Amino acid sequence: MSLDPDLEVPRGVPSVRHRVVKVRDRAASECQDHLAVEEPLEIRLGGISLSVTMRTPGEDEELIAGFLFSEGVIAGADDLDVIARYRGPDGDPDDGNVMNVLLKGDVRVAKERLRRNFVASSSCGLCGKATIEAIRTAMPPVQSDLVISVDRLTQLSAAMYGAQSTFEKTGGLHAAGLFDADGRLLVLREDIGRHNAVDKVIGHRVLARAVPLDRHVLMVSGRVSFEIMQKALTARIPVIAAVSAPSSMAVQMALAADMTLIGFVRNGGFNLYSGAHRVAGVTELV
Amino acid sequence: MSLDPDLEVPRGVPSVRHRVVKVRDRAASECQDHLAVEEPLEIRLGGISLSVTMRTPGEDEELIAGFLFSEGVIAGADDLDVIARYRGPDGDPDDGNVMNVLLKGDVRVAKERLRRNFVASSSCGLCGKATIEAIRTAMPPVQSDLVISVDRLTQLSAAMYGAQSTFEKTGGLHAAGLFDADGRLLVLREDIGRHNAVDKVIGHRVLARAVPLDRHVLMVSGRVSFEIMQKALTARIPVIAAVSAPSSMAVQMALAADMTLIGFVRNGGFNLYSGAHRVAGVTELV
Repeated sequence: MSLDPDLEVPRGVPSVRHRVVKVRDRAASECQDHLAVEEPLEIRLGGISLSVTMRTPGEDEELIAGFLFSEGVIAGADDLDVIARYRGPDGDPDDGNVMNVLLKGDVRVAKERLRRNFVASSSCGLCGKATIEAIRTAMPPVQSDLVISVDRLTQLSAAMYGAQSTFEKTGGLHAAGLFDADGRLLVLREDIGRHNAVDKVIGHRVLARAVPLDRHVLMVSGRVSFEIMQKALTARIPVIAAVSAPSSMAVQMALAADMTLIGFVRNGGFNLYSGAHRVAGVTELV
Repeated sequence: MSLDPDLEVPRGVPSVRHRVVKVRDRAASECQDHLAVEEPLEIRLGGISLSVTMRTPGEDEELIAGFLFSEGVIAGADDLDVIARYRGPDGDPDDGNVMNVLLKGDVRVAKERLRRNFVASSSCGLCGKATIEAIRTAMPPVQSDLVISVDRLTQLSAAMYGAQSTFEKTGGLHAAGLFDADGRLLVLREDIGRHNAVDKVIGHRVLARAVPLDRHVLMVSGRVSFEIMQKALTARIPVIAAVSAPSSMAVQMALAADMTLIGFVRNGGFNLYSGAHRVAGVTELV
């Protein structure tokens, strides 16, 4: 099976195509998948970093206007002077992920309010050209000789669903489960926040003095974002499985850190985005 | 139709029962629904507020251990001295939404790192007993005589789906749409982040100098959290519709601010959680 070794995301697009391996009934075929683009957006107010949000590029001006309005920073469009994409010190347009806002001269922003509500970060670590490169440098790739069979992977989703409780009652919770190399569910947690469910699962192992998790599989009930991949990488988890789709940045991170990332784990199949060498028992279709 | 005027959430439970009006084929019946509990958790490190996250209560120690581990604050359980629920100055256990962490004496936390990564908030405004009361005081209830028919409400979901683009290709995006009083879709936005899609929709109207939105319906493709309700309230939107479930705090907020909140808008029906007086054309089943 061959996967793209890298994923280039053109600036400003909302989705990208990526070659994936589609596994159905133990048979693999290659196909093109569309990924939702996830990129950081840093919002600066008068040059000072106000907030970093992971977003899908497109309508960034609207995102910023709506965010500032919701947070009570502006009362309407009349308070805005300029929303402009930041160009680097030498006029280099950078990667389009930094926007600068200027308010009208007579708009007074309560500094205390800003300090209270926002991260004031002078260097966000997520924005700028070198994001993935920076992560690659800061965190070495996962080292794990774990190999897991297609049959085991396709059973994860049923195992997790069977153990879920509140979720079925409310339809309102995300779930995360940690499996060992034999496909046994070690811990399952549910939360209204997708990241919280993952934090609880990893925290359970931290408190049990059982990290790193380098022979484990993390499964999540929904989508996979960059942030979930980052949490998994910190815990050295080599295989991430999801019921739904990964974002572009999740795939980039998996490729950079040699993590195995599978999505759409349902109905006896899944899509493989990265790390095919950890999946066994697949017949290749030519 | 009669709805509970209030929603009490006992401390520490992951889900609560709430009386809702279930509408199917224009006929209404009352039933009990389970809601996933959403409550803020404030994490303090040595008494200093580090982070506030909206979470489902339960396994808070795990959540904190996992969060601190993922953020690189601790390397493992040995770095933790105590994770304890904060009791107010007079020993009052408060509402259980504030936890204090003490690290072992020889664990050095990079202050710069903390400052860079976290909101340092001395009073978070979300935690503590008086959350909903505080919001009620800070933000007057929605004033709107908008009335919308069941038929129009049940058509929203098809109208939104028809206008979605990237979502269908990737399965990886949240969508938010704003409808006028006649059920016309004014603007639809998609994003990897559910809050971002709402910010873009509201930002579109802010930039068009068309706020407040007090004769409009906001529809979201997924679940409804407290934060989405807060954004809608700031824009004075009286009716919020969702394809999936609202959280406990979304319902509390809707009740407090007299907003109409409907969930599970699909297959010609929906569940009504708050604000029945804005829904017309329902036959009541006795």
